[in-house]
Amino acid sequence: MATDRPSLRGHLPHGVQDLFLSEASRRRQAEAVLRDLFARWAYRELIPPTFEYEDTLVIGAGSDLRQAMYRFFDREGHTLALRADFTTQVARMAATKLLDQPLPLRCFYIGSVFRYEEPQVGHQREFTQAGVELIGASTPAADAEVVALAAAALEALDVPNFQIILGQMALFRALTAGLRADDLERIRAAIDQRNPFRLQKALDAAGMTGSQRALLASLPERIGGPEVLEEALAFGGAVASAAEALAEVYRLLDAYGIAGRVILDLGEVRGMDYYTGITFRGVAPGLGWPLLSGGRYDELLGQFGRPLAAVGFGLGIERALLAQAPQTCFAPSLAPHLVVQGCIHPPCLSLVRRLRQAGYRVEVDVLGRQGADLRAYAHSQGCRRTLHCTGDSGPQGPLWQFSDERGERTVTGDQLWEEAKKWND
Amino acid sequence: MATDRPSLRGHLPHGVQDLFLSEASRRRQAEAVLRDLFARWAYRELIPPTFEYEDTLVIGAGSDLRQAMYRFFDREGHTLALRADFTTQVARMAATKLLDQPLPLRCFYIGSVFRYEEPQVGHQREFTQAGVELIGASTPAADAEVVALAAAALEALDVPNFQIILGQMALFRALTAGLRADDLERIRAAIDQRNPFRLQKALDAAGMTGSQRALLASLPERIGGPEVLEEALAFGGAVASAAEALAEVYRLLDAYGIAGRVILDLGEVRGMDYYTGITFRGVAPGLGWPLLSGGRYDELLGQFGRPLAAVGFGLGIERALLAQAPQTCFAPSLAPHLVVQGCIHPPCLSLVRRLRQAGYRVEVDVLGRQGADLRAYAHSQGCRRTLHCTGDSGPQGPLWQFSDERGERTVTGDQLWEEAKKWND
Repeated sequence: MATDRPSLRGHLPHGVQDLFLSEASRRRQAEAVLRDLFARWAYRELIPPTFEYEDTLVIGAGSDLRQAMYRFFDREGHTLALRADFTTQVARMAATKLLDQPLPLRCFYIGSVFRYEEPQVGHQREFTQAGVELIGASTPAADAEVVALAAAALEALDVPNFQIILGQMALFRALTAGLRADDLERIRAAIDQRNPFRLQKALDAAGMTGSQRALLASLPERIGGPEVLEEALAFGGAVASAAEALAEVYRLLDAYGIAGRVILDLGEVRGMDYYTGITFRGVAPGLGWPLLSGGRYDELLGQFGRPLAAVGFGLGIERALLAQAPQTCFAPSLAPHLVVQGCIHPPCLSLVRRLRQAGYRVEVDVLGRQGADLRAYAHSQGCRRTLHCTGDSGPQGPLWQFSDERGERTVTGDQLWEEAKKWND
Repeated sequence: MATDRPSLRGHLPHGVQDLFLSEASRRRQAEAVLRDLFARWAYRELIPPTFEYEDTLVIGAGSDLRQAMYRFFDREGHTLALRADFTTQVARMAATKLLDQPLPLRCFYIGSVFRYEEPQVGHQREFTQAGVELIGASTPAADAEVVALAAAALEALDVPNFQIILGQMALFRALTAGLRADDLERIRAAIDQRNPFRLQKALDAAGMTGSQRALLASLPERIGGPEVLEEALAFGGAVASAAEALAEVYRLLDAYGIAGRVILDLGEVRGMDYYTGITFRGVAPGLGWPLLSGGRYDELLGQFGRPLAAVGFGLGIERALLAQAPQTCFAPSLAPHLVVQGCIHPPCLSLVRRLRQAGYRVEVDVLGRQGADLRAYAHSQGCRRTLHCTGDSGPQGPLWQFSDERGERTVTGDQLWEEAKKWND
């Protein structure tokens, strides 16, 4: 679509957005809540650059992600790309820079990622991801910790009624070991689409028979509690080991008290090139896309020269905010606690400084407004309290004219300070 | 410089960086400190997108900034650019979206900006800017508030011995009104370079004489307190008005208690295309670049169709952190408060949950480590405290083996909770 050049000035490109006022505040609050949560679970933040060499960012990226990358060039002719995900960057840092840190590494990140996608609700071209990676531990305890932390993140963001869909790529990999790539992909796609007719055709084409075929054919319907693992546990070999590992993760999540949030789903076979063990998604009723997704990827770090097991998840902050309970009062108020007449008397300036130091939001007028004018302005800012300099002093020092929902009165600095202790907005 | 493709994998491009551990923590702490400070001065955050149409981002950008932009294309053939500055985006938002907000608008921003520059200390290709814009007020009180907030920002970041260099573009504009563009630029450049020989030549070429010439010729040396304004105040007309406005800003900054930080400098004539009133820079001894810069730009918002006066500043967070006092203990500790043996007993899990809810950083081992192994691991993480499950219970409930710098002992949950109250790291 050709557009006249002048028409772009001042318009935003599709799929990116401006946030301001309460929307900006909600976003920052969500980031702060997650940063705090991750730190309490002993994860530490990594801040990689917004762009890197494309050659690095495509490592471990599926074809969808590769296609969605924004690419450009530096003046030496190298191809750069905006990050479309954080995991590859975290893997690079863990494999090349954090060599002196004890294992396992617990890392988290929060920031923008960029994907060229058709914009729609829940699909922006720039959006904010927060996530964790637990690197150097391949135990079910590590898997369970990351799933439990994902659930804790959705809880901290006040997302109601979410569920965690938990699958096991190692089980599918074990059941399909040795198949030709095209057979494997046909079976995977049919399971992913939950299409029994296609799945039977794909199993025919791959020449599969017996209990292996029966178990593969049943994967799309194996959704529920630990009972969905029974046949796989009886299968023996790598299939049973994969099922047992998932059963152990489920037992640990039960101990964490979140089994009620978890649905096992053996038909979860997305991201096969990437995931090597458990995979999971966080979903909420009525939303057409996951709030978070993650899993175990034990082969990525080796591509940066340091083979280490790893498990993690990434959460879409904008998506989680869309899923937030509507009655949630999540972001702090932005309105000033007090609007003060502009004044250069030292007592006025020092009172303002003292209030700000104590954490109050204090706006000092710079347009010379007084009396009813200043009060009307304060009200328009969502603030019912104004303070005017009187220039007078009483026996207890300087006096101000203070106005709030209870009316106007003359106060000393100490009296105003007592008032301020009641301001809890 | 041609480079083999494989050699780029896992390497970082010049001029961008990874932050981790204490460096990442210092950066986030600086952002949090500034976000909190700006909110107390009743400024509200705006979050514009990381990229926009180039046509928008070049508005108000000087030629240096235009040249330094990273440009790329969307799939509709439009030219996009990464932001090289926030002010243009804030002006766009204020002029096109925040129309229902009372004036003046107080906005702030914190985020990455991108400039293609030769990387060196203090010059990264991606760096973090934090700043404010006060829109819809053209008073000296507005100017002084923004300068005072800039000083408060450097103080909040523990930058020692900083100074604010304060100039007045309106004075230079008034003294050179009516000159031809090439004459004007020659004079401006000579003043900027503080080169008296070139300045005399440029004044000759422009045919300037008399008191106007004398005042222009003296600008590079007019550095100091309010006395540098004396001749300009006596000059009359727009020159005197510009000087009087600056004198008033200085008086207000004196009332704010920061005149000792401020140096007036009438030879500050950078950014002439952009600034219309006061200009200022925050500098620190021994650093070759400013920590922040700002000024009044009353003509930018009109380019987005809403002519409003505006004044603001932008601060380079990485630069401010480089200028921080070396003894500053700025970032919070990252080490866990406690490392706990992995255990699925409900009392262990609930104790961990309770400690995390109270804000403690608690790491739960996922590698099955016990006893001396676990303690050695905790020490390597910078934590002297470990907790082992005993599986036993006493009359007061479950018992744990707790170890800290005072040695090992058996504790109940309540006893551990009492211990935790003393953990102030």
